[in-house]
Order: sequence, then C-alpha cells, then structure tokens
Amino acid sequence: MKVSAIITLKKDVLDPQGKVIQQALDGMGFENISEVRQGKYFEIDVNENDPSKAKAVVEDMCKKLLANLVIENFKIIETQ
Amino acid sequence: MKVSAIITLKKDVLDPQGKVIQQALDGMGFENISEVRQGKYFEIDVNENDPSKAKAVVEDMCKKLLANLVIENFKIIETQ
Repeated sequence: MKVSAIITLKKDVLDPQGKVIQQALDGMGFENISEVRQGKYFEIDVNENDPSKAKAVVEDMCKKLLANLVIENFKIIETQ
Repeated sequence: MKVSAIITLKKDVLDPQGKVIQQALDGMGFENISEVRQGKYFEIDVNENDPSKAKAVVEDMCKKLLANLVIENFKIIETQ
C-alpha cells in the first residue's frame, strides 16, 4: 500500500526558500499571503497490506533517513 | 487560514531522485519497498477565512507558479 510522508521545518526554524516563494507570489499579485513554508513530500509504496504496519515502516524511514529530527517534523498519511 | 499544496510528478514521468532514495532505503535494510516518489509540499497561510476561497487562491498559485502542469499534478489540502 501507498503511504505518504510530509516533512516540514519546525515552527521556529527560518525558511528562506519559503520566503522567496512568498515574495515571488507577492510580485505576481498574490498579496494576501502571510507566510509560505516549503516542505518535502514522499510517496512510498510499501509491500505491506496492514495499514498500521506500513505506517510504522515509513515512520521508521523518516526517523532514520528522510527527516532531520533536529530541525524537521514529519507526518505520515495513508494514501488512497 | 493555512492551506497546503502537494505537488507530485505525473505517473508516467520518471523520478530519478525518488529512485535514489529507494536505493538508499534498500541499502539500510528497508527491502520491502516497491517505489518511492518525491514531491513538493507548500504550506501557505492565506489571509482569507472562507476555506473555499482560500483553496481557490492556492489553486491559482499552483497553476501560475508552484506546479509545472506539463509534468506535475497538484492537490490542495486544508490544514488545521
């Protein structure tokens, strides 16, 4: 089954890339934005039919490789 | 309100970056994976209280700047 992981910077970590995107959007006329933060997204197809086991595997991947837990948070989502 | 946009490569577009992540995971002992695809994630704080209007604004941003619609799909999600 497919499981998705969303990795975002922690709230207190500066996100210069998001800031630049916000400025670009602002320059294009989207002036009603107070913040843009960029993150990473992974869609992982695990050979495992039990949703909770598949999620546990992806959580383990995030902890060991995908996310830097010092500055990032991660969220696991089941994908249809 | 905060709206998230997830941008993924279309199904038929090769994702070498995802392939490398899969190989890295495989080398770390996660051998039960059939595919990894990487995407982009944006969390946008729009000054707009109506969820459907906020989503429409973010959809517009995706079409005009954030996503390359030739090779990418996007999905808008309301964030709590």
